[in-house]
Amino acid sequence: MTDTQTTQAQAAEKQRILTGITTTGIPHLGNYVGSIRPAIAAANAAIQAGTGDAFFFLADFHALIKCFDPDEVHRSTRAIAATWLACGLDPQAVTFYRQSDISEIPELSWVLSCSCAKGLMNRAHAYKAAVDLNTAKEDTDPDHGISMGLFSYPVLMAADILMFNATHVPVGKDQVQHIEMARDIAGTFNFKYKPLFATPNAVVDENMPLLTGLDGRKMSKSYGNTIPLFGDGNPRVDPEKALRKAIMQIVTNSQAPEEPKNPDDCTIFEIYKAFATPEEITALAERYRAGIGWGEAKEILFEQINREIAPMRARYFELMNNSKELEEILQFGANKARRTAAKQLDKVRRAVGIKPLAKLK
Amino acid sequence: MTDTQTTQAQAAEKQRILTGITTTGIPHLGNYVGSIRPAIAAANAAIQAGTGDAFFFLADFHALIKCFDPDEVHRSTRAIAATWLACGLDPQAVTFYRQSDISEIPELSWVLSCSCAKGLMNRAHAYKAAVDLNTAKEDTDPDHGISMGLFSYPVLMAADILMFNATHVPVGKDQVQHIEMARDIAGTFNFKYKPLFATPNAVVDENMPLLTGLDGRKMSKSYGNTIPLFGDGNPRVDPEKALRKAIMQIVTNSQAPEEPKNPDDCTIFEIYKAFATPEEITALAERYRAGIGWGEAKEILFEQINREIAPMRARYFELMNNSKELEEILQFGANKARRTAAKQLDKVRRAVGIKPLAKLK
Repeated sequence: MTDTQTTQAQAAEKQRILTGITTTGIPHLGNYVGSIRPAIAAANAAIQAGTGDAFFFLADFHALIKCFDPDEVHRSTRAIAATWLACGLDPQAVTFYRQSDISEIPELSWVLSCSCAKGLMNRAHAYKAAVDLNTAKEDTDPDHGISMGLFSYPVLMAADILMFNATHVPVGKDQVQHIEMARDIAGTFNFKYKPLFATPNAVVDENMPLLTGLDGRKMSKSYGNTIPLFGDGNPRVDPEKALRKAIMQIVTNSQAPEEPKNPDDCTIFEIYKAFATPEEITALAERYRAGIGWGEAKEILFEQINREIAPMRARYFELMNNSKELEEILQFGANKARRTAAKQLDKVRRAVGIKPLAKLK
Repeated sequence: MTDTQTTQAQAAEKQRILTGITTTGIPHLGNYVGSIRPAIAAANAAIQAGTGDAFFFLADFHALIKCFDPDEVHRSTRAIAATWLACGLDPQAVTFYRQSDISEIPELSWVLSCSCAKGLMNRAHAYKAAVDLNTAKEDTDPDHGISMGLFSYPVLMAADILMFNATHVPVGKDQVQHIEMARDIAGTFNFKYKPLFATPNAVVDENMPLLTGLDGRKMSKSYGNTIPLFGDGNPRVDPEKALRKAIMQIVTNSQAPEEPKNPDDCTIFEIYKAFATPEEITALAERYRAGIGWGEAKEILFEQINREIAPMRARYFELMNNSKELEEILQFGANKARRTAAKQLDKVRRAVGIKPLAKLK
């Protein structure tokens, strides 16, 4: 490819943002603040400004790598789909689909695997970390417990991205390497056959909001310090009560109610900042310095969070109780996604020599 | 899985024979004798005896691993499809399809990759041979020039086989390991999720007829000693003349025409045996011992081969000149194959937790 050539996709100047959501677990408040809310805001901003469009997909094929419980995969797919929609993802404005509904993706993944050096996968961080764990043990094969799914996962991820010629892929720092791999694979294919793929860019938000958890550390399922977003999936627990209960468990120091307090050294205040306007934050800081009881501060935090998410929670349970509506939304998205995917795959197939021997009516 | 359980497929007692044909190159007479003719005969025998059915597919996804010339992939697909049909493959009796028409196969391949240990692929002969070539060189990465396609090819092959619950897979000795891998992957999936896959058996014909080439070695494209089956693809060369010309190039010794000759030390006779009845073979051996000129022996060989393949050659060129008919046959086969594949994939998807959230009309 000479310098004067550009790929067909790059000729279009608009951004295409693509976000994948692995379908394991039930989203918590940290996911909402750190991922769901900013991703939806960014997509809406790009669409309203006319600078691009956005694809969101439920990565259920990826979930199979680490989750062998079919009920968990299914339950999680439903809960995550309902969560994103309830949080304001507009399936009319964006393209919102389930990865496994697009059979073009695994097909593209195979074609791309023939343009992907195995050495590239050897150097993947996630794979290397798993190997390091094994080599630290005695008498253990370096590849012990590692599946081909885990090993070749970056190729499927490249297919997810290149299928739609996404230009911007928001990821955490640990995922930047996967985007570099997708760029590498795209480059190899473009050079070897035909410039069909845009080279995607990783979008890493250095200021990505990380919500503080109950114990003051980053909120994470693995720390067991999460606050539920729309409940924990247990239908017998009222989700609003569960939210309040979790907030009341936030760890504080033992200062008396009337003592002046430092807002910058308080988990309650840290979490509050993620849900309040600058004016509200200043006002609460002043109340801290004047002296506020922890119980009252927690009550203020609960009200603040609940004000934002209560309408979403109502919509979430509406969707969770209406599987048909959810499925219809996903099918609507799958049809939209397939229109793009089918065209792209047809070009890819023809480029590698796979095409009908004759045109039939 | 307990001993009393059997897979759904094993409950059916009939054999399902599956044969894959990689779509690179143009078949020569050695392919016809060693692979095409016996495979078609075995399939027809099983079908007529009512002991099973047979699937034949053009493995064009596999071709992408080693062939980066799109025209070659396309041309070869056409020539190989026409060859098998011309040689008597009955698309009504068997299921004859192009791998790339069955999008269920790469999808199944991904699901299976999550039930396939990476260590299994590390031990694949083809991969290890490629690594050995690299490690023999200085300053060369062991994985130099090895693609993910080459590395993960046995998973795709497992999907080819398990997609249709094939019970019998005729292969050369070098491919037996791949069938063992498919058995291993099937076993892992059956244990982890649900017994959906039959364990396939490799069928190795120890008496597999290997045709002798022009120089007395095994006929092989890599030795450059082949006899064309239906010409070499060059439309300006008459294929019957090309057959005769090749036969006239068979290497013989310098015995005079009238000298008695040893039929068991003669390439012409070796090839003749693959095309003649026992009576004809005995008769020619007697003529050898009585003394026969090499030119006459070659003429007899040409007539013998041509008698068998001339009607096939006519049909081959009929098909090659009628792409529409070829494509219709392949589409007919694809529809048959997809009926089985779609049902099997649906079961697989449900077993791992991928299914619609609700039934839509």
